[in-house]
Amino acid sequence: MAARVHISQPGLSVQPDRAVAVHRTLPEEVAVAMVFDGSSAAVMMATPADVQDLALGFALSEGIVTAPDQLDGFELAEHPNGLEARFWLREDRADALAERRRFMAGPVGCGLCGIDSLDAAARDLPSVGDGPRFTRAEVARATDMLRDQQPLHDQTRATHAAGFLLPGAGIVLVREDVGRHNALDKLIGALARQGIDPATGAVVMTSRLSVELVQKCAIAGISTLIAVSAPTAHALRLAQGAGMTLAAFARGGAFDLYSHPHRVTEKVSDVA
Amino acid sequence: MAARVHISQPGLSVQPDRAVAVHRTLPEEVAVAMVFDGSSAAVMMATPADVQDLALGFALSEGIVTAPDQLDGFELAEHPNGLEARFWLREDRADALAERRRFMAGPVGCGLCGIDSLDAAARDLPSVGDGPRFTRAEVARATDMLRDQQPLHDQTRATHAAGFLLPGAGIVLVREDVGRHNALDKLIGALARQGIDPATGAVVMTSRLSVELVQKCAIAGISTLIAVSAPTAHALRLAQGAGMTLAAFARGGAFDLYSHPHRVTEKVSDVA
Repeated sequence: MAARVHISQPGLSVQPDRAVAVHRTLPEEVAVAMVFDGSSAAVMMATPADVQDLALGFALSEGIVTAPDQLDGFELAEHPNGLEARFWLREDRADALAERRRFMAGPVGCGLCGIDSLDAAARDLPSVGDGPRFTRAEVARATDMLRDQQPLHDQTRATHAAGFLLPGAGIVLVREDVGRHNALDKLIGALARQGIDPATGAVVMTSRLSVELVQKCAIAGISTLIAVSAPTAHALRLAQGAGMTLAAFARGGAFDLYSHPHRVTEKVSDVA
Repeated sequence: MAARVHISQPGLSVQPDRAVAVHRTLPEEVAVAMVFDGSSAAVMMATPADVQDLALGFALSEGIVTAPDQLDGFELAEHPNGLEARFWLREDRADALAERRRFMAGPVGCGLCGIDSLDAAARDLPSVGDGPRFTRAEVARATDMLRDQQPLHDQTRATHAAGFLLPGAGIVLVREDVGRHNALDKLIGALARQGIDPATGAVVMTSRLSVELVQKCAIAGISTLIAVSAPTAHALRLAQGAGMTLAAFARGGAFDLYSHPHRVTEKVSDVA
């Protein structure tokens, strides 16, 4: 199945004194049900490209699995109201899914009290490993390098991207989506499918840095996160606690460093 | 309680050949549990300002209540892991909450199959009413007018805003949040608390237009939605179906119109 990722849309381009007919390319957005062992773990709105990467990245980010070989037999099914991304769990992971279902019952409104649901939503994050070093110059160029690999954004001017930066090698893998969290889950799933260890590089985002993006990176073992815009204060606290380097406002050849700056070095010779 | 909405953060501003110490103002982001009759309906990450507006707007957008007088006695409680926004439901609405809890069990992973959860996530939208007319000039100026009323964004360069535009009167109400969906829920809650009928104006957003933003506006009866960036294709289809006017890429004195353009008129005399 090849779902369309964008459409050509007729419209009017309007200024106060005139209106002219135009066609714009708009990104598609569909409901995707993440289905494990026949029952859905979530429904999210997403760009219908790289859906297998999305479902695998979601399963890893949410702790449904801890390695891609715990999932079998991906299928993508199309329905009038959206897509089903179906995986089957290796037998020894079925218990983890049942456990997660009990956990999820809280935050989403099956009757826990407010304090319990706040506690359930506050995940403990693992500490990231030592990880690679990057030069100032490559961090400063990171979002420009990512911008060169966003074909859906080129057409729609409306999608986010997550890229994987390897020291000295530039951005080696990119995934796009209308949602920044989906773009990152797709990237994490694509890394797993290609057998690339997330701990060997940095993630580069076109967006702001929310709590959820830091959580996903920490769980994947990614030690450096670079973004074109600001982190939230709480996202920064989580990154500090997890040992993660946050570089923000990375644009125009400069960036801000707020946590664990030792992974960004002055010269190439400091990297090794 | 006055939770901090931003913090001052020391950091390094880095370029390839230098690094200088700076302070940046970062927006705060906290977990907020929406608690109705003592049990939580959702936990979301949000900017801790205007939380009562957020909780009321959420209750209206999600159909927990259909009017603000169905909620009693707001309380805001602070906990180590976040905030609790507590409302009590008027007695005749308690059944609606129980019904919603059953509905929500599907999409979020309590065991429905993929098709059922996709169907549950696809809400039927009401048609919006005739609504007000706006001149091309005021739609073209709308996002610039909104930009002048974003104090949190002025400080952090990182937050979204939703504004309420009245014909001939400009933007009369604005709410900000790190999340665009929260900003819109806050605006809808604030309109309800101030007794302003959402059907009398347009919503102006600093973001792209996702499916969820169109859904919230349609449920609130808002007939015109203006945004600085693109709609997704599916958001546009929902707006077309609900009779809603979408103006997108509203920046630099121009905008695109994709649906129901009759609400945007050439001259002031056409408005009445």
